[in-house]
Amino acid sequence: MTWPPLRPELAGIEPYGAPQLPADRAPVQLNVNENPYGPSAECVADIARAVAEVAPTLNRYPDREFVALREALAAYLSRDGFRGSQARTSTTEISAEMVWAANGSNEVMLQLLQAFGGPGRTAVSFAPTYSMYPEYARDTATTWVMGRREEDFAIDLDHARAVVAEHRPSVVLLPSPNNPTGTALPPGTVTALCEAVGDDGIVVVDEAYGEFRRAGVASALELLPAHRNLVVTRTMSKAFAGAGLRLGYLAAHPAICDAIRVVRLPYHLSAVTQAAALAALRHAPELLGKVDELRVERDRTVAWLRAQGLEAADSDANFVLFGRFDDRHAVWQGLLDRGVLIRETGPDGWLRVSVGTAEEMAAFQDALLHVMKEI
Amino acid sequence: MTWPPLRPELAGIEPYGAPQLPADRAPVQLNVNENPYGPSAECVADIARAVAEVAPTLNRYPDREFVALREALAAYLSRDGFRGSQARTSTTEISAEMVWAANGSNEVMLQLLQAFGGPGRTAVSFAPTYSMYPEYARDTATTWVMGRREEDFAIDLDHARAVVAEHRPSVVLLPSPNNPTGTALPPGTVTALCEAVGDDGIVVVDEAYGEFRRAGVASALELLPAHRNLVVTRTMSKAFAGAGLRLGYLAAHPAICDAIRVVRLPYHLSAVTQAAALAALRHAPELLGKVDELRVERDRTVAWLRAQGLEAADSDANFVLFGRFDDRHAVWQGLLDRGVLIRETGPDGWLRVSVGTAEEMAAFQDALLHVMKEI
Repeated sequence: MTWPPLRPELAGIEPYGAPQLPADRAPVQLNVNENPYGPSAECVADIARAVAEVAPTLNRYPDREFVALREALAAYLSRDGFRGSQARTSTTEISAEMVWAANGSNEVMLQLLQAFGGPGRTAVSFAPTYSMYPEYARDTATTWVMGRREEDFAIDLDHARAVVAEHRPSVVLLPSPNNPTGTALPPGTVTALCEAVGDDGIVVVDEAYGEFRRAGVASALELLPAHRNLVVTRTMSKAFAGAGLRLGYLAAHPAICDAIRVVRLPYHLSAVTQAAALAALRHAPELLGKVDELRVERDRTVAWLRAQGLEAADSDANFVLFGRFDDRHAVWQGLLDRGVLIRETGPDGWLRVSVGTAEEMAAFQDALLHVMKEI
Repeated sequence: MTWPPLRPELAGIEPYGAPQLPADRAPVQLNVNENPYGPSAECVADIARAVAEVAPTLNRYPDREFVALREALAAYLSRDGFRGSQARTSTTEISAEMVWAANGSNEVMLQLLQAFGGPGRTAVSFAPTYSMYPEYARDTATTWVMGRREEDFAIDLDHARAVVAEHRPSVVLLPSPNNPTGTALPPGTVTALCEAVGDDGIVVVDEAYGEFRRAGVASALELLPAHRNLVVTRTMSKAFAGAGLRLGYLAAHPAICDAIRVVRLPYHLSAVTQAAALAALRHAPELLGKVDELRVERDRTVAWLRAQGLEAADSDANFVLFGRFDDRHAVWQGLLDRGVLIRETGPDGWLRVSVGTAEEMAAFQDALLHVMKEI
């Protein structure tokens, strides 16, 4: 036995993490789908004030049920969560009992797999999909099964139903908009999977990038009233410019939220996190304004890439998957040599670029034109 | 199958959590071992300033390796971690590579069990022990085996060795000072268990209350150079008056810290948490001064309880286990009726009271005298 006595399936594995480089090596950082705009000075001051208010009582444990934060997240989802949907098909309000939150949506996913997955149970997703999912499954000893998406990154319903029928998953993970492709799933796909899974499991639609959907693209939030086995996750990392805040959340049937309480670590959300997240939520209009700017920049980027004769997947996220290149690593390296760091991920031949400011995207385009001439 | 489709072993379980009551029902709260002293105004201002400094870049992911915080925790442990030991037997510095941290020591424990426990592996502790441990084991599908402590809450070495020989645990969990008894383990017990477990597992000494040890009582930190399978956990919840901050940490061989990185969720410590914890650590001298006041109050409480003819376990923590009562619930309820909330926990007949301010302990004593006259 090697030492230390790690579980055998973990031995020799490199910890997950996007390759990162300091700003002096890569001044234009478009690799981890961060929002390029930091919170405004008003939002920063509000966060600092909120933390100063809770700091004198930090000797006490935080609110284990984070009631105020759940209420604020529910109010946000009820007001703005459906934003982007062409026709809001549901008028159902999202109540605080339908909301759960944790330290990043990765902790939300881990809790869902602890509660509904685990040994002897199976989780399913469809590749290409978010690269962390298999790690959550491994860390919870959940059997992991990967279906596939079609050439256009859609999910074929016959294939999806066949995977569900064969593996009887207790958790289906559907990123929508998908990472790394940017593809949002149509409501019919989510509905079909909720029906196929039934009461044996849950269907998790990961809307980490939900606020970036193009106009007319539905949110799975609309389907919550129809499917009690549906879970929609969101995060403050992207639209709320809060990657450093670590606040992920979900909306689902109250019984699902209540079930997660059994596996959550007590007091998992610090008083500081609760206060800072509440302050950021008060600045939703300002932050969603920046989201709209980024959506425009994203659509411009897709159009520009296609105008260069490249493929670019339709994107409802704050990044674009483009290609295809015979040697994508050479393109990635060429961009980095010009100070632009993007992500070498996705199916063979594709690369992923996060949507930054107009200046950052101009730098990306300029660098890519040079690289394409050279290879 | 009931719905929602929770794992069968979780169905019907109430989430963990100490019973809590609002201050108007229980003005004297001595039930969850909180530090009664909040951070000073200077410390509060420093925390708020630190958060204001990181807030403008919250759109970026935090430092995944939390290097500055690991360095500060290592410096604190090297300087103050052995405090209370009569003779510091080791001069080994604790380096940043020997430190790991997470959102509360409960997340540290979960990560240790994910990495070193899990399906087909066994974790062991000795009752009475911290009531959350079996839950961490359950949540990681680790087999849970409970040995026992003696009548005086010490661990009998023959018994402990026999449990290890029979169950070959990959994780041994030893709270010291123990919760709920307050008992610190002598170095010989920790050494014997480290030797019994050997390279097949790790021995975790949970020193959540380590800073409250009586003079002359050793910390397991002293044993780190001798045992590469030893892990010593600490928290900022108690001595650092930071229960609301959620910052637990450990010191161990660098290979153990590195192994945890495989199961940690990426970016698990927010930029806000890192900044706030760093700020609080700068105020260690002030906070440790309050610890010394609480140690005096704790010793006074033990002496007073014994003077009333009651038993009180020797305590190296910020709480005292006392008894024994034929009907401990009646005593607990009688105290609560007088506005004093303590914890009904520990072996039959015992109760646990957290050490609060001198005023709070006077209220506790006054209420207990009344209750004892009545029953």
